[in-house]
Amino acid sequence: MNEPRDFVTSCPIPIVDYPNVLLAHGSGGKLMHQLIEKIFRPAFQNSYLNQQHDGAVFEVEGKRLAFTTDSYVIRPIFFPGGDIGSLAVHGTVNDLAMCGAKPLFLSAGFVVEEGFPMESLWRVVQSMKQAAQAAGVEVVTGDTKVVDKGKGDGIFINTAGIGVLEHNRTIRPDQVKVGDTILLSGDIGRHGIAVMAVREGLQFDSAIESDSAAVHHLVLKLIGVGIQVHCLRDLTRGGLASALVEIARTSKTKIAIDETKVPVREDVKAACEILGLDPFYVANEGRFIAFVASKDVEHAITIMRNDPLGVSAEQIGKVEAGEAGLVTVRSQIGTSRILDMLTGEQLPRIC
Amino acid sequence: MNEPRDFVTSCPIPIVDYPNVLLAHGSGGKLMHQLIEKIFRPAFQNSYLNQQHDGAVFEVEGKRLAFTTDSYVIRPIFFPGGDIGSLAVHGTVNDLAMCGAKPLFLSAGFVVEEGFPMESLWRVVQSMKQAAQAAGVEVVTGDTKVVDKGKGDGIFINTAGIGVLEHNRTIRPDQVKVGDTILLSGDIGRHGIAVMAVREGLQFDSAIESDSAAVHHLVLKLIGVGIQVHCLRDLTRGGLASALVEIARTSKTKIAIDETKVPVREDVKAACEILGLDPFYVANEGRFIAFVASKDVEHAITIMRNDPLGVSAEQIGKVEAGEAGLVTVRSQIGTSRILDMLTGEQLPRIC
Repeated sequence: MNEPRDFVTSCPIPIVDYPNVLLAHGSGGKLMHQLIEKIFRPAFQNSYLNQQHDGAVFEVEGKRLAFTTDSYVIRPIFFPGGDIGSLAVHGTVNDLAMCGAKPLFLSAGFVVEEGFPMESLWRVVQSMKQAAQAAGVEVVTGDTKVVDKGKGDGIFINTAGIGVLEHNRTIRPDQVKVGDTILLSGDIGRHGIAVMAVREGLQFDSAIESDSAAVHHLVLKLIGVGIQVHCLRDLTRGGLASALVEIARTSKTKIAIDETKVPVREDVKAACEILGLDPFYVANEGRFIAFVASKDVEHAITIMRNDPLGVSAEQIGKVEAGEAGLVTVRSQIGTSRILDMLTGEQLPRIC
Repeated sequence: MNEPRDFVTSCPIPIVDYPNVLLAHGSGGKLMHQLIEKIFRPAFQNSYLNQQHDGAVFEVEGKRLAFTTDSYVIRPIFFPGGDIGSLAVHGTVNDLAMCGAKPLFLSAGFVVEEGFPMESLWRVVQSMKQAAQAAGVEVVTGDTKVVDKGKGDGIFINTAGIGVLEHNRTIRPDQVKVGDTILLSGDIGRHGIAVMAVREGLQFDSAIESDSAAVHHLVLKLIGVGIQVHCLRDLTRGGLASALVEIARTSKTKIAIDETKVPVREDVKAACEILGLDPFYVANEGRFIAFVASKDVEHAITIMRNDPLGVSAEQIGKVEAGEAGLVTVRSQIGTSRILDMLTGEQLPRIC
């Protein structure tokens, strides 16, 4: 009686393969892409979703706006370098920045589990406030739901964001061109390792702190000085590797990466070894890649390295003619491997 | 180590009274308002939140836009007359309509519990698709997170929405004026009772179906013909009563309601009696109240009754000079009672 009667049972993900949703369906890798391609995109098909971008860019009465959303379900909610509140601000601000937009307004939707300490809720909200103020955005609308004890996990936060594009460029995967240089804004892997270290009870000489930060000022500086930025992507779930593979596929180009140019801190490397993780797949929350016209590379690198969020920026690779969707990585010893998207759930609930 | 060090422990909700979040903090009543007033509004204070409206209205380069968000945690996810997917579209479309905006774009954030049937996810998404198409809005950006089994409850959905105001009116609580007439768009209580009947296993001669619907076409028709609409509010969590008390408080006016004019279906009345509920506090998802200038009442009622979503519209009360924030209800036998906000959690997880 309670089931809709007018649905034909034809879920496009074969029930025999995946009768139920798995953790890996949310981890930024292959299964998540299957979910998006087979269920979400066909249902909501429109030109905005087809951009396969971190947010949608559309015109309202002649003004270009960007719109994006993310839910945050990270565990633990407090971690070295941040918490779920600051993360919920940084993540959505960064997704707007990746569209080339100046972030303006955020919404905040809280799903709180009955019994969650009031003090923790207050702390998380204070942290959101500080992060929003620092980023120059306003939380203008919100919602709170409470679910029964045992039907949630403390707190989940959704933020959506609106930004405005104050330039005429189109910045998205299909703008990537053969010959583009790929810049990485800094060392990778710190957010994921900071969170995993807490979960696994690992101790380091000094704590590895998350790189969680709002990067829009740096991005807007690059665009503002006229650097030809063709595509931007922040390196969250699935890490650098998944971002590169996604963009290579969407832009139908081949990408060649020089592993020796990708900065990874020694303590992060060591932690990755202990935990059996590949830093290329570990989540970040304040790092991005930029695909820029090669003539602008020196200028772009100078700007990035002069910004606190880009001091260790590097030129890590090139877009080449070749097999569409292929990403190759040349190692220190000169061997080359093919990079694939994350399979399985390497780091569940990292953001 | 994982706790932020720079917070002073001064949560403004006394820990002795409420050390932990309760279900009632999410049910649209008194405790939820305490949470908003003591924790959320002081943190994110800005003129948009201070409007105490269903969404924020702001200008971007001279265009007035509305922005709103809601998370949907309803149980069961399929119910007579709808499901969590259609609800997530209708609810956010309606919140934009309550700002006087034409809804344009939605975001969709899914938090799915590991083990949730793929088939159910697909059905929910199909239902969102149909509801969005019917409402003329596009889902343009989204996100999916998966949480471990036992750390969620099947599926939660957040939608945020953007709309545009295509007129010059200001529609919000502080525009309510003494002398305004209050119109109700139809019979109340069906959504809450439809959901509770499933939960409690109640059987009726014919199923009570939720009133869940997108009401923006009707609202925009009223505004479009020039009806002086001062304030709009959809009657979701906390029902008609909480909506009236909220608006009386924000607008600092007194409201007088005639109970005999408030349409409640006989089967809904009967179910309310069995369940010990007051229909004034039961949630709706396709009903709203409009505060309009008295000179426009006949015109407005005619328009509403000619629309499928307003056939049983009624003029239920007036805004009067008197004690600010007071809502009185005159009953069939001529007695008068004072209406208060919902206390406790009459109907948890109803939306």
